[in-house]
Amino acid sequence: MEAKRLILALSLLFLLSKSSAFHSRKSRVHKPCKRLVFYFHDIIYNGKNSKNATAAIVGAPAWGNKTILANQNHFGDLVVFDDPITLDNDLHSAPIGRAQGIYVYDKKEIFTAWLGFSFVFNSTEHKGSINFAGADPLMNKTRDVSVIGGTGDFFMARGIATLMTDAFEGEVYFRLRVDIQLYECW
Amino acid sequence: MEAKRLILALSLLFLLSKSSAFHSRKSRVHKPCKRLVFYFHDIIYNGKNSKNATAAIVGAPAWGNKTILANQNHFGDLVVFDDPITLDNDLHSAPIGRAQGIYVYDKKEIFTAWLGFSFVFNSTEHKGSINFAGADPLMNKTRDVSVIGGTGDFFMARGIATLMTDAFEGEVYFRLRVDIQLYECW
Amino acid sequence: MEAKRLILALSLLFLLSKSSAFHSRKSRVHKPCKRLVFYFHDIIYNGKNSKNATAAIVGAPAWGNKTILANQNHFGDLVVFDDPITLDNDLHSAPIGRAQGIYVYDKKEIFTAWLGFSFVFNSTEHKGSINFAGADPLMNKTRDVSVIGGTGDFFMARGIATLMTDAFEGEVYFRLRVDIQLYECW
Repeated sequence: MEAKRLILALSLLFLLSKSSAFHSRKSRVHKPCKRLVFYFHDIIYNGKNSKNATAAIVGAPAWGNKTILANQNHFGDLVVFDDPITLDNDLHSAPIGRAQGIYVYDKKEIFTAWLGFSFVFNSTEHKGSINFAGADPLMNKTRDVSVIGGTGDFFMARGIATLMTDAFEGEVYFRLRVDIQLYECW
Repeated sequence: MEAKRLILALSLLFLLSKSSAFHSRKSRVHKPCKRLVFYFHDIIYNGKNSKNATAAIVGAPAWGNKTILANQNHFGDLVVFDDPITLDNDLHSAPIGRAQGIYVYDKKEIFTAWLGFSFVFNSTEHKGSINFAGADPLMNKTRDVSVIGGTGDFFMARGIATLMTDAFEGEVYFRLRVDIQLYECW
Repeated sequence: MEAKRLILALSLLFLLSKSSAFHSRKSRVHKPCKRLVFYFHDIIYNGKNSKNATAAIVGAPAWGNKTILANQNHFGDLVVFDDPITLDNDLHSAPIGRAQGIYVYDKKEIFTAWLGFSFVFNSTEHKGSINFAGADPLMNKTRDVSVIGGTGDFFMARGIATLMTDAFEGEVYFRLRVDIQLYECW
């Protein structure tokens, strides 16, 4: 009798441990372990703004050049950037890091891009980097790219970054809002 | 006596839980949690096919140009692409998504490439993206690149994509078969 | 009495299992499951060294060209490489693999780069590939990029690679020491 009751208690404990593990797995799916929102600012070189430019066209299709974004929705333009990251949407706020890497415009019919880049931090608040890759169908209000890794404070991070175009001025300046949701934190 | 038997039962239960966890870890190694096979089609711009081209040379070495793939096994040619994805190997089948990103030919002695790209889906069947990166020694019958992340239906995915050249016509058209095996599904 | 002692033993066992899981999680954070150290050697094409060059400028900003690294800390230069990997720091040692991919210089004020590349092995010692991405602030003594995936012997690998400039000769040759620490091994 005693024994049976014990086995019952035991099994319950065991099942509980299992189901709690399962639960943590499920909640891990839906709730980020870390969330960060930043803005970054891209000023593309157009032949006249070398002092302010934070980005430059370095690859272009046969029909393009390096100081004007190409016809056909800039298809084929490859841009290298070193953009300031700010906490709010003001270009003139103190930058707390840099967004560095490349993007390419990759569709003839509409504006679409592919991004490979990093956020690099070296402040009292954040030290380390977050690495991103993914498609950016930039005419959509929001779009998701992958957080594929991180270093320092963001050691081994994985997750999703939701991009939103916060401003777009002519073909020289744009500002992206980046909502980073990490689902793997170490 | 009772107690001893109980402790034995308990220990067994405990070990079982451990070994089953171990087992699930092992099976996770060898069996994908999701598998998908697609084809994508790349038509490179050669100066004459602007209507049909899905890709363009946007970077080339000093000895190259933007309308002909360079000497030395195209070493240094960087291509931007927006290729239709189909379920079968027919270029004219209804595309179910787009393969978008870049590849570079990166070896002088033989054909080899490095790829950074995404599959972008927005159909009733699949919504979201799968992000890839890796080396493509394209003279090998099959070669593996990494699935480094995903969004939407492919949220947080990781895995392997096995590429196979399914057709290759001159230097203008190729078709890849992509066998995606995801080992991390959320 | 017996029962109480048993429940105590049971609870201890249960807690132990929990804390050991916790511990293994923590130790997984700090101790790599695999560690590898390699060197790779980059000889950039300068118009005269086509026989020895392992890398070439294929994208450049408006103010640059394809045979000399650009002004402003090479900002905007995009390089494709196929560099030999060696076990020691001797360029002439037998290569045990190739480092293949791209890097871009991405800052006007100092030397900084962004890397997307793979280590490709096909020897008796290692078969498969390791894929990397991340920022390389190359004036720092060491800097970390992410291991974003792997294939073959490095199936599904994730981790950190610590880069160190081991030699730098003019603007033609550099050698990197790469200390790969994998924290996810399958």
